[in-house]
Amino acid sequence: MIRRLGLVGLGLLGGSIAKAARADGLADEIVAVGRDRARLEPALRDGVVDHVSTRLEDGVAGVDFCVLATPVATLAALLPVVWHALPADAVLTDVGSTKAFIVETAEGLARRRPLAFVGSHPMAGSEQSGYGVSRPDLFRGATVILTPTERTDSHAVKRVGAFWEALGGRLVTLDPATHDRATAAISHLPHLVADALVDAVVRMDPRFFEIAGRGFKDTTRIAASDPQMWREIFQENRAGLGEALTAFRAALDELERLIDTKDATAVERELDRIRRTREAAG
Amino acid sequence: MIRRLGLVGLGLLGGSIAKAARADGLADEIVAVGRDRARLEPALRDGVVDHVSTRLEDGVAGVDFCVLATPVATLAALLPVVWHALPADAVLTDVGSTKAFIVETAEGLARRRPLAFVGSHPMAGSEQSGYGVSRPDLFRGATVILTPTERTDSHAVKRVGAFWEALGGRLVTLDPATHDRATAAISHLPHLVADALVDAVVRMDPRFFEIAGRGFKDTTRIAASDPQMWREIFQENRAGLGEALTAFRAALDELERLIDTKDATAVERELDRIRRTREAAG
Repeated sequence: MIRRLGLVGLGLLGGSIAKAARADGLADEIVAVGRDRARLEPALRDGVVDHVSTRLEDGVAGVDFCVLATPVATLAALLPVVWHALPADAVLTDVGSTKAFIVETAEGLARRRPLAFVGSHPMAGSEQSGYGVSRPDLFRGATVILTPTERTDSHAVKRVGAFWEALGGRLVTLDPATHDRATAAISHLPHLVADALVDAVVRMDPRFFEIAGRGFKDTTRIAASDPQMWREIFQENRAGLGEALTAFRAALDELERLIDTKDATAVERELDRIRRTREAAG
Repeated sequence: MIRRLGLVGLGLLGGSIAKAARADGLADEIVAVGRDRARLEPALRDGVVDHVSTRLEDGVAGVDFCVLATPVATLAALLPVVWHALPADAVLTDVGSTKAFIVETAEGLARRRPLAFVGSHPMAGSEQSGYGVSRPDLFRGATVILTPTERTDSHAVKRVGAFWEALGGRLVTLDPATHDRATAAISHLPHLVADALVDAVVRMDPRFFEIAGRGFKDTTRIAASDPQMWREIFQENRAGLGEALTAFRAALDELERLIDTKDATAVERELDRIRRTREAAG
């Protein structure tokens, strides 16, 4: 299917793509590009990749299928360089957690040099990061969102979709703006809220952590993630996050108001509605 | 240690206490009191309890160690009846998730009839409820908060503490008001916030649930709990919850403000501080 697979970035996501592609024989050759050669060496030793390069232009030359797998903020900076270094018939995708900005940047670049780009967002990850924690089954059962627009080449959408499906992903298609609103609601807002829950305990009395049990740990697990990655996501998706925060504050205010009415039936009806909504969501 | 153990309420908590006490031989006899005889029969058939009763006064007569294991709102209504039906030398405790009100009620009753009462809150539970999901290891490793005051009999505190330790609990002692503030921060606020997170998605677009992954499920798991139980907890601990909501809103506003400054270093420093705080909390 792929002659030469190029991975820009070999952390948790890039490493897991390489391991899965190697295990399933999805590419004849795999090349990984990164800033630091020492960080690329383990994958070369493991036989997970065939070539490594610290020079972006050299690394992606001759690649027919390329995945940008760096953090969100770096994506935008690398995109123009990769865009011009790739062969004209290559297919390019990414793994960014926010999509409107990257898709817009790609469509700007396409006006000067046409290239098949499809935005992707595999919703797989962990509180941990780096090649060391990557694994071939990371995308097994994971939702992968594709964000084509009316300007996206439909053949490229099929190839990118087939690639993620081969890795075990479950495809969902959304336009870039809807993607950013949806991930704000489902992922970015819960993350910011988990941070605020931890900080609320600090503000009340840090000794209260002493009684924290499994429930608190589950609810705030995502607050243990990489600060730089999440700062970038929050800032890149500021608009979506803002809309989600508004909806969340309205929901919280309404629950508090209901509790204050002392109307037991109304509060229980509302809590039950929320419970059933969550259960229906799977 | 206990001649006749009385359990008022035989749901998840009461049933788990009975199973653990039976398995470890903590009581010569175990009697369970509940409103509905049919719901008590399974425990009798299992040999987990020796006697069952639907009449509170009869059920607790002759009991030397009694645990009130009903939902929070019912506790306050049953307490005076149990108080006057128990032998004068009995020790009484409860499992309520809020403590200031129940301890105050008990101390009011003690002015008319002295009785050894110690407030307890075993922090064990589940989204599910009922005897059917009870299990003898529910309290293994669980934090159990005792809330004695300067008026509590110290011998009774030792007996109640030893009881929970025999069931596998890890004891923490807090005064009732501090208990309610701490559980508001660690448990009640995260619960209300999980409800609001689910409702925020509904308010934005319910189709967004389609992309919800493990992270969202973990963060909102507690929103799947029993609506009546949680309505009672929110209303009983309104003061503690209010203080926790104030701290939480301040924390969330501050995070949003920092994101808007576009000061990458400041945002990352704050996210990192929160991450380290959570990790230090175990």
